Amino acid sequence: MLASTTTQRLFSLEEGLNMDQDQKQQILNRLNIIEGHIRGVKRMVEEDAYCIDVLNQTRAIAQALAKLDALILNRHLHSCVITAIRSEDVGERERVIAELMQVFERIH
Amino acid sequence: MLASTTTQRLFSLEEGLNMDQDQKQQILNRLNIIEGHIRGVKRMVEEDAYCIDVLNQTRAIAQALAKLDALILNRHLHSCVITAIRSEDVGERERVIAELMQVFERIH
Amino acid sequence: MLASTTTQRLFSLEEGLNMDQDQKQQILNRLNIIEGHIRGVKRMVEEDAYCIDVLNQTRAIAQALAKLDALILNRHLHSCVITAIRSEDVGERERVIAELMQVFERIH
Amino acid sequence: MLASTTTQRLFSLEEGLNMDQDQKQQILNRLNIIEGHIRGVKRMVEEDAYCIDVLNQTRAIAQALAKLDALILNRHLHSCVITAIRSEDVGERERVIAELMQVFERIH
Repeated sequence: MLASTTTQRLFSLEEGLNMDQDQKQQILNRLNIIEGHIRGVKRMVEEDAYCIDVLNQTRAIAQALAKLDALILNRHLHSCVITAIRSEDVGERERVIAELMQVFERIH
Repeated sequence: MLASTTTQRLFSLEEGLNMDQDQKQQILNRLNIIEGHIRGVKRMVEEDAYCIDVLNQTRAIAQALAKLDALILNRHLHSCVITAIRSEDVGERERVIAELMQVFERIH
Repeated sequence: MLASTTTQRLFSLEEGLNMDQDQKQQILNRLNIIEGHIRGVKRMVEEDAYCIDVLNQTRAIAQALAKLDALILNRHLHSCVITAIRSEDVGERERVIAELMQVFERIH
Repeated sequence: MLASTTTQRLFSLEEGLNMDQDQKQQILNRLNIIEGHIRGVKRMVEEDAYCIDVLNQTRAIAQALAKLDALILNRHLHSCVITAIRSEDVGERERVIAELMQVFERIH
């Protein structure tokens, strides 16, 4: 499920990993919160909470995921996309544009 | 975060809990899978996976959440909504309809 | 494209058409606004407007459609769904619930 | 409603308008189809079509809008975004990235 399609790395770019370390930790913190939120929903289901209350929580998780996506996309645009588009490799440009279109169409 | 707005119970309705027990377990199983999937994304971030690979996984999690929502909504329609609409309490009817509209508008 | 799958009527229910006439007009007014908005976007494209400006307008149209959906769904819940669920025809109940699930899954 | 926030033009770029003319016509054709589809939904409402049939049509219109968005975004990525990111103007890069994030967050 989680096999990387490319060896490109999320945060280790020539801008230096240290700035990324903060952002990386920010993303990990958000994932920890989402993980805790999922466990909270499990408890609600085990304790026979009202359906609508459970649905409100899964919506809040979906919104937290959307904010996480925005953080990662913003990071990607400022690193991988700029690097590829400013390169002389037209193939790299097409690759990052095709990837952005795929992300866009999957959430649309 | 997870305070129930009403003491109405998700699965313990007069139709008998046993059938619900299977469905309840089905929902808990899906939540376990989503929780594991979140941990998988954390590993990807820790291992500096490519941004787009991470975004593909968060999309898959969002879709898993949407399927979970459908399971819970279907359950709700077949229990709480039918019970409320077939009751003589117009207020109960309005309540469940208002809740359905809220769910609809939150995901729209 | 627009063949009705059932002879059920949107607004002509035993509650009396007059109240529905206002709501019907409200929905038609919104459709007129959306139609005008589409024509506005056509002019923008003809006049070579900036891509992002056009995308902002198509988003506004999508949100107007979502509000229209909510108006129609709310109308449906208060008429067809109540009528079907309060009937003694279990098949009718299942039909309206299946339809609601389809609407929910299409927008999710 | 349709005031352009910038005088940047959608299709008239140094790559030559002719190729864009086909794409511009493709977008105008899709807008015409959507406009006709809206009129079709108006007829359904006037003829008291079944609520769910109307909702299925508004969903189809929303999906047509989403496809139109993808066409425009793809065009934008291949023209304005490449031009701005390959320029030496860091402000232009930040502008187009901020715009892409706005589009992403509005549809998410």
